[in-house]
Amino acid sequence: MSNIPYKTYLEESEMPKQWYNVRADMKNKPAPLLNPATKKPMTAEELSTVFCKELVEQELDDTTAYIDIPDEILEFYKMYRPSPLVRAYCLEKALDTPAKIYYKFEGNNTSGSHKLNSAIAQAYYAKKQGLKGVTTETGAGQWGTALSMACAYLGLDCKVFMVKVSYEQKPFRREVMRTYGANVTPSPSTTTEVGKKILEAHPGTTGSLGCAISEAVEVATHTEGYRYVLGSVLNQVLLHQSIIGLESKAAFDKIGVKPDVIIGCAGGGSNLGGLIAPFMGEKLRGENDYEFIAVEPASCPSFTRGKFAYDFCDTGMICPLAKMYTLGSGFIPSANHAGGLRFHGMSSTLSQLYDDKLMKAVAVEQTSVFEAAEKFARIEGILPAPESSHAIKVAIDEALRCKETGEEKTIFFGLTGTGYFDMVAYQKFNDGEMTDYIPTDEDLAVGFAGLPEV
Amino acid sequence: MSNIPYKTYLEESEMPKQWYNVRADMKNKPAPLLNPATKKPMTAEELSTVFCKELVEQELDDTTAYIDIPDEILEFYKMYRPSPLVRAYCLEKALDTPAKIYYKFEGNNTSGSHKLNSAIAQAYYAKKQGLKGVTTETGAGQWGTALSMACAYLGLDCKVFMVKVSYEQKPFRREVMRTYGANVTPSPSTTTEVGKKILEAHPGTTGSLGCAISEAVEVATHTEGYRYVLGSVLNQVLLHQSIIGLESKAAFDKIGVKPDVIIGCAGGGSNLGGLIAPFMGEKLRGENDYEFIAVEPASCPSFTRGKFAYDFCDTGMICPLAKMYTLGSGFIPSANHAGGLRFHGMSSTLSQLYDDKLMKAVAVEQTSVFEAAEKFARIEGILPAPESSHAIKVAIDEALRCKETGEEKTIFFGLTGTGYFDMVAYQKFNDGEMTDYIPTDEDLAVGFAGLPEV
Repeated sequence: MSNIPYKTYLEESEMPKQWYNVRADMKNKPAPLLNPATKKPMTAEELSTVFCKELVEQELDDTTAYIDIPDEILEFYKMYRPSPLVRAYCLEKALDTPAKIYYKFEGNNTSGSHKLNSAIAQAYYAKKQGLKGVTTETGAGQWGTALSMACAYLGLDCKVFMVKVSYEQKPFRREVMRTYGANVTPSPSTTTEVGKKILEAHPGTTGSLGCAISEAVEVATHTEGYRYVLGSVLNQVLLHQSIIGLESKAAFDKIGVKPDVIIGCAGGGSNLGGLIAPFMGEKLRGENDYEFIAVEPASCPSFTRGKFAYDFCDTGMICPLAKMYTLGSGFIPSANHAGGLRFHGMSSTLSQLYDDKLMKAVAVEQTSVFEAAEKFARIEGILPAPESSHAIKVAIDEALRCKETGEEKTIFFGLTGTGYFDMVAYQKFNDGEMTDYIPTDEDLAVGFAGLPEV
Repeated sequence: MSNIPYKTYLEESEMPKQWYNVRADMKNKPAPLLNPATKKPMTAEELSTVFCKELVEQELDDTTAYIDIPDEILEFYKMYRPSPLVRAYCLEKALDTPAKIYYKFEGNNTSGSHKLNSAIAQAYYAKKQGLKGVTTETGAGQWGTALSMACAYLGLDCKVFMVKVSYEQKPFRREVMRTYGANVTPSPSTTTEVGKKILEAHPGTTGSLGCAISEAVEVATHTEGYRYVLGSVLNQVLLHQSIIGLESKAAFDKIGVKPDVIIGCAGGGSNLGGLIAPFMGEKLRGENDYEFIAVEPASCPSFTRGKFAYDFCDTGMICPLAKMYTLGSGFIPSANHAGGLRFHGMSSTLSQLYDDKLMKAVAVEQTSVFEAAEKFARIEGILPAPESSHAIKVAIDEALRCKETGEEKTIFFGLTGTGYFDMVAYQKFNDGEMTDYIPTDEDLAVGFAGLPEV
């Protein structure tokens, strides 16, 4: 065994003080958000009716490489960061591979995932702007939980619209948010105009993320002192999440290791974009080469089977248009899909990098993902979130390939969170009742048909 | 703000290599376990039919101060330890206290608590003895989860009898254990003689910890290659848990701080005994003085209202007799008691230390505990287990007292775990439906009446 420790923690003094904005080093910048009515780039003014002012600046800034992290956010980060860079000695041994495996574990905070990194930043700027509160939507609940924690810390009101089926089936997630003082409303609700309309049209509906977004945006734009916040997809979110990659890079430098391949799961891109940011920066500047792999579910394959086109970010079609790899905002993954990463689109920044062939993407099926998750839990002692397990699956595959070829590759993946609140999906897997679903070309055609003309 | 970091992690090379056995430094040793039939001290041979051989040695050894931690356990510890020693700057600021507050956080592993420290040790010795597997009982599920993880790692079979009401009401705990490959049986079951008898006598019973222990012991003693393991109360468990205190002591030394008061929750004593061990050792050897406070629920007040007497460790009255502070093995906390720490007795070692006035104890009511838990979650960002929150409650009280008096005390408490699987109790609190219960003297008399004559 080498003298590299199981876990590398940065000292407080070694923690990053700035976020890294990968767009600054991209030759082909991500395409701008468009106003859905005029099809013209959204101005800062237009965006400021929905988002906080400083966040709009971050959203639009594609030239500043490093942005100072405000002191208040640095203090909050110190409560739950740095997260460990883990050498997976036990997994290497169990796989009998010559590959060296590392992962960055972001699950050691009460929200259970990396979402907190951007939640505290967005809540901070809202507070700084003198707002009373923020609104958002949540599906599985990781983002809602993280935002509730951040708002409780800053004394900001937090209104969460939680997809009704999750509200009912994940009562524990709901209670965590309530314990943090958040106002959690099952969506669709009768508290908004759009909610009432949907309930009239579809009585008994269990809701969708698209509807919850619409309700959250309506409340934010119609309530004095409120703005809307989002946990993925946006450039600002990738900027905040760069803390993951920056800490990883500093920890790798500390132990004198350079990863060869970097693997992350991809839903809207918040984790993957943050994880790879500084490494991609080196690649873009020609300083170092890395192989990047985005892993997505075969049942919601935005990168591998989607189109690179302008599309709505929400199912309700009220948000700006983003140019991204998308399955169409009308695409809804099959009901048997348990593993998260259900978003039809993808971060514009990552989409551009993928289109420029700077990263690869693979799609994996969910039973194989849960097999990898169970194996990982038993060997490495961490019960992973289904989302994170997509990256685990591909990291294990890669390590087994190295076993075949004898390559001593250094594999690095992002372990975004824990599966504590995903035990319904694990139970399905444990009971042998989990199945796979791959959409047919006809299924995908339905989503593509709804793509807007730009 | 001082230059002490929010979190102090030991380097891998600084992690303790030995457990500390506080009994070696006690002038008054804890009284021996007695055979319930003969009322004579249990011999190693008698104990070896139930427990693993090396664990029996550890159980009976009250003279060896330091015991080497086997390499295999050290390796496992490196996967999830060291745990952080946290300076609670945010809590200090929110309380506006001159006191300095520290806590040792044991919740950053998938079992969610400190239980894993002893689970891996007990599983290791079972494996070393060539056993096929171990049996145990679990109520809330922390111990069962920890043991399942340890057994999965070592390739040992794990049979868990889970109190039926928990099995049904905490399906997620059950699924975590199943994911780790454990065989989880709701107790009482028809798989044991004692289970069948209980079901005949009480059809429809939802079970009890005492019954689950009886089933687990029956299976262990009637199955070739199996032994029974227990997660608290025993001397061996306190020995393994001393890793908590040893790491804390090393971290305090590293930052040049000496705690004045050390606070821990007390159910059977596994956390408290481990947390205070090396500090108590210094006090026993006259090297340093500390104030120790055990915190227990007012609804199950073993220390503060119990008797120091020989009693059964289990409700089924089949286990050896231990001399301890006890409410009687027939005492069952009120059904409205949600905060864990339900054991009627207490570790013999801690009982002796308490009787020798080397530590104090206080009892707190559960609504005040959940108020402290909610406050802590919102300020420090960690959603604590109800058990751990007993210590939080008293630490906050102590810090507020310091505010009155102006004392700059250094307060240190054990944060044993997370509350992820306790959201039913939090929901009750959030909904304002939680009530307090303090047993009357008449209630306690029932338990005391069942104390065996020795």
